[in-house]
Amino acid sequence: MREDLIALNAEYAAALDDDRLEDWPGFFAEQCFYRITTAQNHAQGLQAGLVYCDSRQMLADRVLSLRRANVYERQRYRHLLGLPRVLGTAVGVTSVDTGFAVLRIVRGGTTDVFASGRYLDEVERGPGGSLQLRRRDVVCDSSRIDTLLAVPL
Amino acid sequence: MREDLIALNAEYAAALDDDRLEDWPGFFAEQCFYRITTAQNHAQGLQAGLVYCDSRQMLADRVLSLRRANVYERQRYRHLLGLPRVLGTAVGVTSVDTGFAVLRIVRGGTTDVFASGRYLDEVERGPGGSLQLRRRDVVCDSSRIDTLLAVPL
Amino acid sequence: MREDLIALNAEYAAALDDDRLEDWPGFFAEQCFYRITTAQNHAQGLQAGLVYCDSRQMLADRVLSLRRANVYERQRYRHLLGLPRVLGTAVGVTSVDTGFAVLRIVRGGTTDVFASGRYLDEVERGPGGSLQLRRRDVVCDSSRIDTLLAVPL
Repeated sequence: MREDLIALNAEYAAALDDDRLEDWPGFFAEQCFYRITTAQNHAQGLQAGLVYCDSRQMLADRVLSLRRANVYERQRYRHLLGLPRVLGTAVGVTSVDTGFAVLRIVRGGTTDVFASGRYLDEVERGPGGSLQLRRRDVVCDSSRIDTLLAVPL
Repeated sequence: MREDLIALNAEYAAALDDDRLEDWPGFFAEQCFYRITTAQNHAQGLQAGLVYCDSRQMLADRVLSLRRANVYERQRYRHLLGLPRVLGTAVGVTSVDTGFAVLRIVRGGTTDVFASGRYLDEVERGPGGSLQLRRRDVVCDSSRIDTLLAVPL
Repeated sequence: MREDLIALNAEYAAALDDDRLEDWPGFFAEQCFYRITTAQNHAQGLQAGLVYCDSRQMLADRVLSLRRANVYERQRYRHLLGLPRVLGTAVGVTSVDTGFAVLRIVRGGTTDVFASGRYLDEVERGPGGSLQLRRRDVVCDSSRIDTLLAVPL
């Protein structure tokens, strides 16, 4: 399981960093939940997120609007992922906690830490046997959110 | 062994990043040694450290004083760990070298690299069979030490 | 294979971060190719690199000139590596893609992100059975290259 989780995260990160956004929804189950929130909101049990999608179709729509909006890509991202910590398994669904940091590389400029935090995931085996995300809560350490946070994390 | 080391480090990092400082001494053996030093001092063989604890009780005391001092937590930390390199094993004690970086997220502010360096560890199996730290030397790359370096690394 | 790739990268990173530059050529096959380029140039299929070596001897020569030039070492580096993604294997050669970031620690100064990107590797078993790099293309995310980029990445 651990090996598969590591592979899932490595592929997920590479898809985003290589700007293959169209591949991103494929890491999720059809019925899924994706949210970007802050550690502060998460600790207070607030359900609202900065980004909120509850189906794979909604993730695909999000990618479409990102492509329309960002005609000229002026920055790149680089994910640095921690090792997954399996928190438990119930009825075929495994809960996982994985730390992450994302660097942002601005064209002609400097590289800074764009975001850090942890992925709180629920994963399950998909139809083909490979792991899929049923739920990914992206809990960001910082509450100061960049206006460009439209990109998937 | 490698798998267990990775798990130990992932749990260690998560405890600190989730601000569960009270769990931190539990990663060490009762008779242990913890030190934060700089690469420069380490290379010169200097034994003095910026932080220095030689028992699990002393680690617990340290957490207590941290809690008293930092009534208002204004920053978060995020550990990024490398993969452990096993240097050798003798009489049940394994020597390990693991690179690390720690990000600091200041409330309402930016995220920067707080510290980087390597953990020089001696680990052994504890009474329950799980790995414990007998010794962790935190060798920081930078000699410019932040005044907030009271937090565990 | 994955385990061996992780170990290879961990040793590679540690050699550079510990300033054991003389060990660096030993990670490559005698007939090898090493290049540092930018994502932009790589995407355009440009063969030119900022750094370009096509034998282990040339890597060793590079280390020698680095040693002569940098009499006073004023900065340290810290590699943060992602998990390797195996892209395929053919005739004993495995293609691998691994994300990386390198921090730079300036003496008496701050720590920043020096470079990020990915290693595009071709690895094979060497005479002794251990993995060797036949080719490592270091594809940097940023096109703004620091004048100090003489150090190996």
